[in-house]
Formats: sequence, C-alpha cells, structure tokens
Amino acid sequence: MNAEVQKYIDEHLEETIDDLKRLTAQPSISAQRLGVKECAEMVVAELRAAGFTAETVPTADPDYPGIIAETDGDADHTLLFYNHYDVQPADPLDEWETPPFEPTERDGYIYGRGISDDKGPIIARLAAIKALRATRGSLPIKIKWLLEGAEEIGSLGFHDFVHANADRLKADSCIWEGGGVNWDGRPLVMLGVKGLLYVELECVAASTDSHSSYAPVVPNPAWRLVWALNSLKDQSEHVALRGFYDRVRPALDLEVEAIQALPDTSREFLHNLGVEIALGEASGYEFRRRLVMEPTANIAGFGSGYTGVGAKTILPASATAKIDFRLVPDQNPDEVLESLRKHLDEHGFSDITVKVHSAESPARTSIDDPFVKLVVDSARSAYGTEPYIMPSMTGTGPQHPVQEILGVPVASCGIDYPGNRIHAPNENIRRDYFRLGIMHTAELIEEIGRATS
Amino acid sequence: MNAEVQKYIDEHLEETIDDLKRLTAQPSISAQRLGVKECAEMVVAELRAAGFTAETVPTADPDYPGIIAETDGDADHTLLFYNHYDVQPADPLDEWETPPFEPTERDGYIYGRGISDDKGPIIARLAAIKALRATRGSLPIKIKWLLEGAEEIGSLGFHDFVHANADRLKADSCIWEGGGVNWDGRPLVMLGVKGLLYVELECVAASTDSHSSYAPVVPNPAWRLVWALNSLKDQSEHVALRGFYDRVRPALDLEVEAIQALPDTSREFLHNLGVEIALGEASGYEFRRRLVMEPTANIAGFGSGYTGVGAKTILPASATAKIDFRLVPDQNPDEVLESLRKHLDEHGFSDITVKVHSAESPARTSIDDPFVKLVVDSARSAYGTEPYIMPSMTGTGPQHPVQEILGVPVASCGIDYPGNRIHAPNENIRRDYFRLGIMHTAELIEEIGRATS
Repeated sequence: MNAEVQKYIDEHLEETIDDLKRLTAQPSISAQRLGVKECAEMVVAELRAAGFTAETVPTADPDYPGIIAETDGDADHTLLFYNHYDVQPADPLDEWETPPFEPTERDGYIYGRGISDDKGPIIARLAAIKALRATRGSLPIKIKWLLEGAEEIGSLGFHDFVHANADRLKADSCIWEGGGVNWDGRPLVMLGVKGLLYVELECVAASTDSHSSYAPVVPNPAWRLVWALNSLKDQSEHVALRGFYDRVRPALDLEVEAIQALPDTSREFLHNLGVEIALGEASGYEFRRRLVMEPTANIAGFGSGYTGVGAKTILPASATAKIDFRLVPDQNPDEVLESLRKHLDEHGFSDITVKVHSAESPARTSIDDPFVKLVVDSARSAYGTEPYIMPSMTGTGPQHPVQEILGVPVASCGIDYPGNRIHAPNENIRRDYFRLGIMHTAELIEEIGRATS
Repeated sequence: MNAEVQKYIDEHLEETIDDLKRLTAQPSISAQRLGVKECAEMVVAELRAAGFTAETVPTADPDYPGIIAETDGDADHTLLFYNHYDVQPADPLDEWETPPFEPTERDGYIYGRGISDDKGPIIARLAAIKALRATRGSLPIKIKWLLEGAEEIGSLGFHDFVHANADRLKADSCIWEGGGVNWDGRPLVMLGVKGLLYVELECVAASTDSHSSYAPVVPNPAWRLVWALNSLKDQSEHVALRGFYDRVRPALDLEVEAIQALPDTSREFLHNLGVEIALGEASGYEFRRRLVMEPTANIAGFGSGYTGVGAKTILPASATAKIDFRLVPDQNPDEVLESLRKHLDEHGFSDITVKVHSAESPARTSIDDPFVKLVVDSARSAYGTEPYIMPSMTGTGPQHPVQEILGVPVASCGIDYPGNRIHAPNENIRRDYFRLGIMHTAELIEEIGRATS
C-alpha cells in the first residue's frame, strides 16, 4: 500500500489513540440514556475536524440523534460508512480491571467500554481519512457517514430514519461496523447479517397462583407452554413453523468455498463455553456452515412459578418464554411471525399470546459483487496476508434497510479481533490490529478510487 | 351431646380464646428458625396445665423439637392427636390488616399467623379435654399427643421420629390436623392425604450463558428441558412414567358415594382462581373425584436464561424445572422417582439431573373403619347436621408414618372453614366454628369412651 499514507498513519498513531481515549471516556449508554447526546456532539466535532460537513439529525426519539456526515472526493463514487456511537452498559462494574470509562493501555491492549464496539472503528476510519487528505490533498472518492445512537437497544426507528434521509445517504457502496482479524491474525471480511424475530410467548391460565393440590382440575400454563414450545421444534432441531425454510436462499458455490476456507476453530469455540459436543455433533465445515448460514429458534429464557431455593407447591397462574429466531436471506420476520401465530392456533394454543420485541430482516451482499473484491484486495494489501470471507456475520444488525432502501453492497471490515470482549467487562482492542484497521481503511478508499476513476 | 360439657365449654370460651391468642402471639416460623423452641416450651406448659405429662423430645435437628404428651383415661382405648406448632412465614406483611403475631378479633373472625394452621386446633382440643376433666372428674379414654415443629418445611425426619418413639406413641386411633366445616357449615371429616414427590430437574449444557447467535451449534438446555418435560406428560394429562398408574387403588363404592354426597362447589372454586374451564372440562362429581382421587404431575416452576423486561439475545447455560407429583394410595414416591430416572434415561435425557426436595407416601383410612363411624356420629351430634366425608384431603401431610408404623386409623376433624386463608395474609378462624370444633372433640372423646367401655 501507499508508503506515504502508511508513514503518516504511524507518525500520528499516538494522536489517534488519544482521540480514541477521549471519545471512549465519554459514556454513551443508550439503554440508560446516559451521555448519548453529549457523545453525538463529540462525534460531530471529530467528523468536522476531519473535513466533513456533519450534523446530528433528529430521530423519532430525541434522546438518540442520528448523525449524517459527508465529504467530497475526486472520483464519482460515494462510499458510505455505518457506525454507532452508543455503547452497552458497563456492569458488572466490579469485573473491570480498570474503570470502563477511563481508557487504559496495558501491554498493547487498550481497555474501555465501547472502545471496540464501536468507537475504535469510528476513530480508525477518521484517522485513515485524515492521512489520505494530508498526503494527497484530497480524497480519492466521496465519503458519507451514517451513525446511530440506539444500536445497542435494537436500532429503534432505524428503518424509518434511513427511509426519511435516503437522498442524503445515497451512495454506491457501504462499509459496515464489525470485521477485523481472526485468531490467526488474517483479516476477516463479512458480507451480511442474520435477521431477528424476538418474541415473548405468554400463557395466563388463572388470575392467581394456587396450591398445587388443585392440579387435577386447574390448567397449568407452564405445561401448556412446554407443549406449545415442543410443537415448535423437536429434538431434530427442525423448526416446525410452516414455510419456515421455504425462503432460505441456498448457499452459492462461492459461499461454500469461503466457508470451507475459514479455519476450524470449533474446538476452542466449544471449549470456551464448556461445551463438549456441538449440536448434531457438527464439526469442521459443517460447524461453520451452521453458524453462518442456518436460521434458528432459540429459547432465550423462560419462567413460571417458583424458581427459588427448595420446594414450593405452587400451581402457577402464568408462564412466559422468550424466543429469538435468527433469520437468513430471504426469510422475512413478518412472515415468520404470521406463521408462528398460525402454528399456535392450529395446534390448540390460541390462549398463548405473542408479543414482538424485535424484528429485523436478514441481509447479505453477494460474494461476487465487484465491491467485495475491492474490500478483499485492499485487505490483502494492508495486512500482507490472504483475507477470509464470511458470507454473513452470525449476529444481527440493521443492515437490511441500507441494502433495501439505498440499494448498495455492504461489507464489514475493521479493527476487531476475537478476544475483544465486546458487551462484557474489560472490552478492549489490540493496538496492532487497530493500526492495521486504519491502514486497511486508507487502502480500501484508494483502491475504490483507482477502480472507479 | 353432653349438656354439662357444652355449658363448661361455653362458660370458658373467652378464657380459651385468650389461651389461643397467647399461643398465636408467639412466632414459630420453622422456615426461619424463628421462635420455634420457645413455642414448643409454651405448648408443653399448656399440655401440662390440661393434665398431661408432656415433654419436648429431640429430633434430628435440635431446632425443631417434637413434643410427646400423654394422659390417663377410663377406657382401654388410646386416642392419638397429631398437630404441629410451627407456622408459615407471615410475608407479604403489608397485606395483613392487623399484625400477624398480634391476634385480633373483628366481627366474629380472629386473625393471626398460625391461628388456624395449626394453633387453633391445639387449643380447641385442650379446651375439650379440660371441659371433660372438669365435668367428669376423669377422661373417658386415654389420650396421647404428638406434635412436631417442622411440618411447614416438609416434616423432615418425621418418619424416623415416629419410628424411634413408636412405643411411646402406641395408640388405637388417631385424629389428624385439618378438618372442620364446608362452605355450607356442615362438618367435613377427611380420611387421608395424598403423597408427594417433589423434584427439581436441571439441565446444564454449558459453563456460561452465551450469545444467541451461537444457537446453530451450541446445545440449549431450555429446549432440552422442554422436550424432557413434554415426554413426561402430554396434553391428555396422562403421566407417561412407566407404571405410574399401576398402583393406584381403585375407588371403593363407599368412597364414590362419599364424593357424590359432597356439594358441587366447582364453579365458585374456579371463579375464585379466575379460571373459566376446569381441566378436561370436569364438573360435578368428576371434578371432585379428580381432586380427591387423582395423582398429578405439576410443574411448580421453571426457569432459564433471561426473563426480565424486554429482549436479551442469550443462549442459556442451564435450565431448571420443579415438579411435584401428588400421589394416591398405593403409589410410592421411591418407585415414582426410580421410574422418572429411568424414563429420562430411556428418552435420551441422561444429562438431566433429578434432585429430590420432598418425598412423602400417601395414606388413606378405609371409610368403613369403625373409628370413622365414631368420628362421623360425634360430628353429627356436635354440629346438629349431617357430616360430609372426604376419602382424602387433596393435599399432603406426614400421615403415612403414623398409619404404617403405629397401624392406626386416622381421621381429620377440627375447626377449619374454607375461608381461613391458611399460608396467606389474614389467616383467620371463625369464633363459631372454633366453638363447634371444641364441642365435637369433646363429644368424639365421649363417643369413643362409650363405644369401648
């Protein structure tokens, strides 16, 4: 890659890390509405310092402003960055080795809440843009930036926000949050997200808990929920909702190849969780294929009656279960919800209510999109090693509105590494991967410029 | 009944109620080990004041002494009373209209924790004995008394205690706790208890909760528990444990007749619980038959993962369920436990552990036992109306060791009425039924004396 740009990035790295620590020290906990607006203003200032026109843009909830920024460039190609400036709550506080909002460097790792998710990527991208502008005088391409402040609480209203600002956000390609390197240090480019339908099932069978001696005559909602759940998925792990698998897009050859090329980390993965055998005894390619390509129906929690210490002979009045369905292209959360309601009704569970907590569509950019090649080529150049491609993240994000409304290919690349402990105590980044992430961003922008000019 | 005895009881009723208030004011919460030993000493003093030799007798846990008392009588028949002097915790305290340990009378009702369960019956029986002794000079029969201080926490060690003291407790018949009148004021004699096997099932599938995006490869213990529970009982309410129903003793004609004679209170029963339709749409005789004669498998509680407000995309590490099996003669909790373990193993759920919280055998005294006739005849005489007979309580108590080890018929009659709110805030007795319970006890003792002299 461009040696001059590389030199600039290295010479300004301490400055960049100071910027990152300053931004990380500003709490922006969306779940607690803590410091979110202050952080938005700080991000706007950083964007302006890097040459962007930038402003906060109201969303449906004034506590969580969006940010839209834009800067000119030489070629007629607009790259859109997506990031979020809000962070997860920091608790449990006593598990942090240093305070979550006092970023601290130790042995090449920098710790702080949000430093990896998602403030490090923001600062890294800014550093790359500053380096390009300083060394070239102008940017090779136009860049737009969309940041939200409510990602960690489910990106409420994000679809409407993108829709309302579609003209301002118009772009040719998009780099998402996430991405970085795998355990072996090889860069990881990810091309999509799974969708999510998160529902809560509730069965209320009586107005009050009663004595369990009434069990011969009083309906038990915990049993009813057990039977309903059992009807949804049996031990084969097959989801019994009618049509659930109909819209699952078959894996492309290129996707199969990409998954095959990923390293086998299933043993370490399971070992970290204290699990001996994967579902279906999956290993190797099949393990990775499931993680990346399979939809799921997961019980995230259930509760009913007495769950404390010892015995209480109670017949519960109600029972609830939280289920998240992870969806893959082209499944649709609205269709799955409709199918779930029908399934419950047809199996005699009309008394079980379904409440939706979250519904996001899956999104996946085709692995043969020319943009993907630019991202991969630039990664190879920046990291000096062959990149991995994951056809999708295993998790969920609001990528679908961007793909659907703006109609652009989306890829994730960044500064992550598998030990970053996002959402957990001692969230951290590695200084070396942070630096490489900046390099890659600069190289990617130049690569797009070369390809489109 | 004996007018002189009746007169004595009435003339000393205020004194008796003072005794009851004093005993009720002494907390004896076994679950909290609060005041239990102090209460035991108080009961021993009351027994001695009524002419008993009485003493506390150590059990396996010194915090919960048993009490054994004895007094002489004319005829060669020994009647054994069973009661417990411990009470349930009083919380939720803010739902009490007057403090739980400051017994208060309002409009013919006296409120206090334990006043009905089981301190009222103790004082009522003592009052009857005092009246008989005062008016007759001696008691018509010998009386023994067994009291425990750990009934509300599952009568731990009770079987061993009865076994160890079998000689001292030797008797010809036994009056249990419970019993009183039905909603219509007619006396209710009950002839047994259901057994109980209370177990906790646990499935641990990982050492830590993880992100629900791992669901394609990480086993979910909540699902496993759902499938295991579903295999135990399906929507027909049939318990699938092998041999579960084999030892269920068929109802005798006399039992069927007794249940038929009970009033139909199913509508009020369900209405009070906010339930529209009973299980199996049972009503009338069938509703009562199920309550009295059917064994059950009840989910008393289950829990796993996230059950708080909103959504958390978690894959739980563990899941638990508490199940109570109510058993009827001649089911055996040890056999049911063995069958449960086998069932889980055979259905592929060897990873699910079973922990026993409580195991009590059912017990039922035959409705044609001559002792039952004495109890019923004396009730008819004391209440002036035809008694109901319930072949069994719907709940559980440690009656089996008494039947099995001492080999005596057991019946429940006492001072209860259906609105007594035992185990709940504002537990209470009715003054009129308390008085009638004393009368019945005196009449029963005389009746046994007449029958055996």
